Amino acid sequence: MRIAIIGSGALGLYYGALLQRGGHAVRFLLRRDLEAIGDRGLTVTSPNGDFHLDEVAGFLHPTELGEVDLVLVGLKSIANDRLVELVTPLMHNPDAMILTLQNGLGNEDVLAAAFGPQRVLGGVAFLCSNRGEPGVVHHHGQGSVKLGEFQGGRSDRADRLGRMFSAAGIPCEAVADLAKARWEKLVWNIPFNGLCALTGKDVTELLAEPACRSEIQAMTLEVVAGANTQGLSAPIEGDAFTDKMLRASDTMEHYRPSMMLDRLAGQPMELEAIYAEPLRRAAQHGVEMVRVELLAALLRLEL
Amino acid sequence: MRIAIIGSGALGLYYGALLQRGGHAVRFLLRRDLEAIGDRGLTVTSPNGDFHLDEVAGFLHPTELGEVDLVLVGLKSIANDRLVELVTPLMHNPDAMILTLQNGLGNEDVLAAAFGPQRVLGGVAFLCSNRGEPGVVHHHGQGSVKLGEFQGGRSDRADRLGRMFSAAGIPCEAVADLAKARWEKLVWNIPFNGLCALTGKDVTELLAEPACRSEIQAMTLEVVAGANTQGLSAPIEGDAFTDKMLRASDTMEHYRPSMMLDRLAGQPMELEAIYAEPLRRAAQHGVEMVRVELLAALLRLEL
Repeated sequence: MRIAIIGSGALGLYYGALLQRGGHAVRFLLRRDLEAIGDRGLTVTSPNGDFHLDEVAGFLHPTELGEVDLVLVGLKSIANDRLVELVTPLMHNPDAMILTLQNGLGNEDVLAAAFGPQRVLGGVAFLCSNRGEPGVVHHHGQGSVKLGEFQGGRSDRADRLGRMFSAAGIPCEAVADLAKARWEKLVWNIPFNGLCALTGKDVTELLAEPACRSEIQAMTLEVVAGANTQGLSAPIEGDAFTDKMLRASDTMEHYRPSMMLDRLAGQPMELEAIYAEPLRRAAQHGVEMVRVELLAALLRLEL
Repeated sequence: MRIAIIGSGALGLYYGALLQRGGHAVRFLLRRDLEAIGDRGLTVTSPNGDFHLDEVAGFLHPTELGEVDLVLVGLKSIANDRLVELVTPLMHNPDAMILTLQNGLGNEDVLAAAFGPQRVLGGVAFLCSNRGEPGVVHHHGQGSVKLGEFQGGRSDRADRLGRMFSAAGIPCEAVADLAKARWEKLVWNIPFNGLCALTGKDVTELLAEPACRSEIQAMTLEVVAGANTQGLSAPIEGDAFTDKMLRASDTMEHYRPSMMLDRLAGQPMELEAIYAEPLRRAAQHGVEMVRVELLAALLRLEL
């Protein structure tokens, strides 16, 4: 498959590299890494085994990428004002699909409004990776994806993409209810990303303080309540899901979510997609996520 | 009047100095400032005029203070585990009163349990002062006190104390409902002390961010709702009181509350008296102050 990677950060580079290694014709839209990858190719370090790609098709302008079958979007959602402009040159092929693996809510909507909802799929990535020096991406663990149609329901193409990703080493499940998968991820991201970013404490430090643990639990239940107004195919079971999530978080040794790293580095955070849009959607259905709202407001303060 | 000052921080030193200047026999329990005050006396700088007291009766142990008529408590409430031990030697005079000007809730209760509720008055101080080098206290502004009986209602002695304070240059009002005065102060202290301490932003910076301003407003309304379950003589009018408080805060140019300074200096904060006890008392009457609870939990994290 001919695949364009738009947004070649830690996620785009890692998944793009796996797909290329799996035999696909991958083209990366690059900025920071353009020269290094042109000179020396792309290196992936991973607990699953390091590897190196000698020949990588990297370009500076989306018009140079040519015709593709799939556009994989890994852009930070804070750059969504450029999303349509970046993807437009890749839409000449009327069958080309767009799969956004961006965080939070509202990304598919931007693409659907510009290119039609039938073009758009979304996916939720559970990936721990970061960029190294130019031309190097470090995979630290996990990496699975749940993907589905923006318009909901099952589809052959989503199933095909799921099998293709899995075959390339990206454990992937095609789901009928993308919205549910997105909200389930938010149940973790909303408390942990924001609280770690705000306090400068990692996941383990937050959970070690009993009052914070209890607030995290309460905040996850707020998000579940918001999620369950969104017409999901089945409700998220609040207590069971929260317990499972907290137990999983207990095993993350001193994990520092990307939003925390962004804030510490003075980088913009994905507050719109991870906080503002979920807050709006819950409020539209009468659920006020009070703790989430306070956290979101405090994150707007500059560090 | 013979007055003992227990807890000679910025508040105890300033009010004690005014009372001594006003002709009262004031004895200070000192620690950090003992030597400096013994050598050089006590200096007060103030927009109302600086002054200096040459002869100041300072002691290291409460047993040295002798018989007094009034014990004025200015101790940080984080040191309340020592409060009874410090006050006990001053209770030989059966008519001696204790007036605590400490922050938050629960301080009078400690004294009442040890010495009988009829001994105890409480006061709410609106004072902006801090300690300078040993022997110097800086008054920056305000300084008024509302005081009343722990057991509620009006009393001659509270009125007398009020007149005595006012005559000494401490604008003072005796109130029938001490609990209401304490909760009204908490409506300001709970959002601003904690949010400034947590975020490292001053009052002006917090209010400048619209989302934070709106959360501060919501948090004040939570505290008002908690207050109004406490059997006050009349309810606090939420919206009017909140509006007045926010307008007053808008005039505080880059004010840094003491809790913020404490946290930045790595000093313990008065979380028990300003957060835990109000949360408990509101919860006992069925009001969950959700935002306050989240803020209190985050303040428990070490900086």
